Amino acid sequence: MTLYAYWRSSSAWRVRIALQLKGLEHRIASVNLLTGEHRSAAHLARSPLGQIPVLELEDGTCLTQSLAICQYLDAVAPSPRLIPADAIGAAQVWAMAEVINSGTQPLQNMTLLKKVEALGADRVAWGQEVIGDGLRALQTLSEPTRGRFLFGDQVSLADLCLVPQLYNARRFKLDLSELQALVDIERRCVALPAFEQAHPSAQPDAVGA
Amino acid sequence: MTLYAYWRSSSAWRVRIALQLKGLEHRIASVNLLTGEHRSAAHLARSPLGQIPVLELEDGTCLTQSLAICQYLDAVAPSPRLIPADAIGAAQVWAMAEVINSGTQPLQNMTLLKKVEALGADRVAWGQEVIGDGLRALQTLSEPTRGRFLFGDQVSLADLCLVPQLYNARRFKLDLSELQALVDIERRCVALPAFEQAHPSAQPDAVGA
Repeated sequence: MTLYAYWRSSSAWRVRIALQLKGLEHRIASVNLLTGEHRSAAHLARSPLGQIPVLELEDGTCLTQSLAICQYLDAVAPSPRLIPADAIGAAQVWAMAEVINSGTQPLQNMTLLKKVEALGADRVAWGQEVIGDGLRALQTLSEPTRGRFLFGDQVSLADLCLVPQLYNARRFKLDLSELQALVDIERRCVALPAFEQAHPSAQPDAVGA
Repeated sequence: MTLYAYWRSSSAWRVRIALQLKGLEHRIASVNLLTGEHRSAAHLARSPLGQIPVLELEDGTCLTQSLAICQYLDAVAPSPRLIPADAIGAAQVWAMAEVINSGTQPLQNMTLLKKVEALGADRVAWGQEVIGDGLRALQTLSEPTRGRFLFGDQVSLADLCLVPQLYNARRFKLDLSELQALVDIERRCVALPAFEQAHPSAQPDAVGA
């Protein structure tokens, strides 16, 4: 399998963690978002939308969208499970993951930031607001299920979304003092080798990290 | 089961379609987003984020986030299946659903529109741009899998996201002439009784629809 990724992309990062946690052999190929490599013919053949991450399977099938890819990996390599086997647990984990995946990250990614900056918004203030709202929402939503991680004591898909989002929060200098429950979970995550190996700064294409 | 919904919410609409397709007995309770009912103590007890849809199960468990709820319904009532049983098919359906759920709808929902209008953006122009980008992306991404519906000849989770998004596209007066493949699929969807019953205009809380 080949994962097409960019070191700082938070959605690619989620998939890197999943691959590492499951111990799946893979190659990482860098697609430089800053130089527009994602818009190259070669990459558009893998992702018609010019997005990363893309997971290219051995037979050439290309899968897109980070949570869809993680869910695929969970189906083909269910150890350790990122999505609980029981239906209610799965729904709770998906809901937490979506608070970040659809409720937070799209409001602070490069494409949207460019649009709101063109309207005169302050990039940092905007980022702080939407990331703050999203992470507070996740902290509240996770209250009934939190243990050592967001869903009990096992790492789940929700934690794979949390860790990159907290990294982005710090890039925007968001005050995390009200988000201690999430920061505690992050600390437990990053202590795991899989999270360490998947970190942006550990990627071969990292610049100044 | 009780679905807390608002007639015009596209994410609540997705869940209404799933409930109808599966023939699951349920009650729909209206939460009026315009009068702020979603911020009431009663609703915050169901959804700490004050969001809809919420699916309240018989035992009082409240599930949030439309795709998480649909996935739950697919697990407990797998006929008809909205997410294919094979891992690659599931990943393809999820990816299409996420192009709308995380890539389009959050950029045109009420919360974001208020923010960009405060920056001086034209609501309609903004909506046309982000919905146009999202639907073109979905049309491209669905090329390899499209049949009568987005994934072959069976309705899937992706179609549940498409239909409400096209309704929103029309509210923003988006020119759909380049999106004929999606409009054709929509036509096949809305001909099904489940889609008819789930339509905003068929909801008891619909106003002027």
